[in-house]
Amino acid sequence: MNNDIIITSLQNPLIKNWRALNKSRSQRISQGIFLAEGEHMASEALQEKKARALLIEADARDHYAHLLTNAKKQGIDIHVLASHVMAAVCDAKTPQGVVALCPYLTADLPDDPGELLVALDGMQDPGNVGTILRTMDAAGFHGLLMNDQCADPYAPKALRASMGGVFRIPAYRCTDLPQTLRGLAARGYDILAGDLHGEDLFNRRCAKKKACIIIGNEGAGISDAVRAAATLRLKIPMVGGAESLNAAVAGAIMMYDLLRERKG
Amino acid sequence: MNNDIIITSLQNPLIKNWRALNKSRSQRISQGIFLAEGEHMASEALQEKKARALLIEADARDHYAHLLTNAKKQGIDIHVLASHVMAAVCDAKTPQGVVALCPYLTADLPDDPGELLVALDGMQDPGNVGTILRTMDAAGFHGLLMNDQCADPYAPKALRASMGGVFRIPAYRCTDLPQTLRGLAARGYDILAGDLHGEDLFNRRCAKKKACIIIGNEGAGISDAVRAAATLRLKIPMVGGAESLNAAVAGAIMMYDLLRERKG
Repeated sequence: MNNDIIITSLQNPLIKNWRALNKSRSQRISQGIFLAEGEHMASEALQEKKARALLIEADARDHYAHLLTNAKKQGIDIHVLASHVMAAVCDAKTPQGVVALCPYLTADLPDDPGELLVALDGMQDPGNVGTILRTMDAAGFHGLLMNDQCADPYAPKALRASMGGVFRIPAYRCTDLPQTLRGLAARGYDILAGDLHGEDLFNRRCAKKKACIIIGNEGAGISDAVRAAATLRLKIPMVGGAESLNAAVAGAIMMYDLLRERKG
Repeated sequence: MNNDIIITSLQNPLIKNWRALNKSRSQRISQGIFLAEGEHMASEALQEKKARALLIEADARDHYAHLLTNAKKQGIDIHVLASHVMAAVCDAKTPQGVVALCPYLTADLPDDPGELLVALDGMQDPGNVGTILRTMDAAGFHGLLMNDQCADPYAPKALRASMGGVFRIPAYRCTDLPQTLRGLAARGYDILAGDLHGEDLFNRRCAKKKACIIIGNEGAGISDAVRAAATLRLKIPMVGGAESLNAAVAGAIMMYDLLRERKG
């Protein structure tokens, strides 16, 4: 790729395609790619070998020389954009001048997805989905199961909140989440669900070595069909006036509780 | 207040004042009020006796008859707004037709603020501030200290995220946070701070009965001056690829860790 050709037209067919990516999930799915915007996300994408191409603003080539070097080493395409073209492609109000173009992955759950999983049952807020990925990435979790009612983990808001977790934690699409969870239980996983009538978080039985935490929808919580697949119901103590916790916060408290058990 | 007079003009001086409230913190401070929008927030405000007036959409009077009854019992003003006027006052894209007008409180830290506190050092995202309030409200914390670099807990996004916690958890303004924290330490509080080089969260010494958790800025973390006031530094284990946690998530993990110690 010639590093000196600068794309200056919004009518360029590549630009037209890329501009559609931040606008709709169906575009990301049909094109099979998403945009990782900004220095932090683009360098995480390169570092995790998840970038398929690098878009760079003409004036920012010197500033991001290290990212260009990395991209060239990996042999991926580099596209140089004029600043107004970069602004049109990006979701951020103040684009940082660099974007990694990454494959949109929709894998099925593999036979061995790892010991520690999270399953999202209709989580709607992309910021919460991203925060869950970031927390999983911190707590050493291995994979995220999502049913079709969930927000897109590759939406701009989710990507920003994940802080790169999206590149390290594989997301699996589960059309029939209750069945998938029953299958995991049959293979020796404990399936954990928050439940107002469950065992007290601070005095619960130990979970099995393999475990999957269910986190529900922000308003409606966990659906009955999904909850029925749980093997361990946990009550997070609510000693004040609040009726519930933010879904990403509740998930984080349960993740770190499992980590405590393993490390303690 | 006559329940039958409907405000239909955007030129009404009351409406002009209220419209300014969601736009700027300085307006909320100078008018001394903020807007708690929607059924959930308005009824929390009424329940906690924190509403000074109730704004209701003309067509929604029957639907919210229970809130009107409560407001009348408390003897607070009721203003009936035409639907386009309500839409102009509200921050929500789809207003729910009811708003509580609440006093904007900026109290100084009292002599006995309670056993369990949180101090925010420059937390910038109002959504995070609201989520912290919600978590404090769930975990039974007693007061929130904020320095002047923090987002406004009475901004629309913070209010929404707090889910009513803002009415139960008093927020105190601390112009000199390091000095306030040293004062608390002198009065027997442990001052906890997340720190990459601190004691492991899972193997730390017990905190004193009275404790204050510091949570820092989303990007820069806790400032040196504030960190120097900490008496117990905690490392939240990071076993995966992430460099850090979301600030509200890190705060929640520390709050529930203190709660575990007290309840366990």
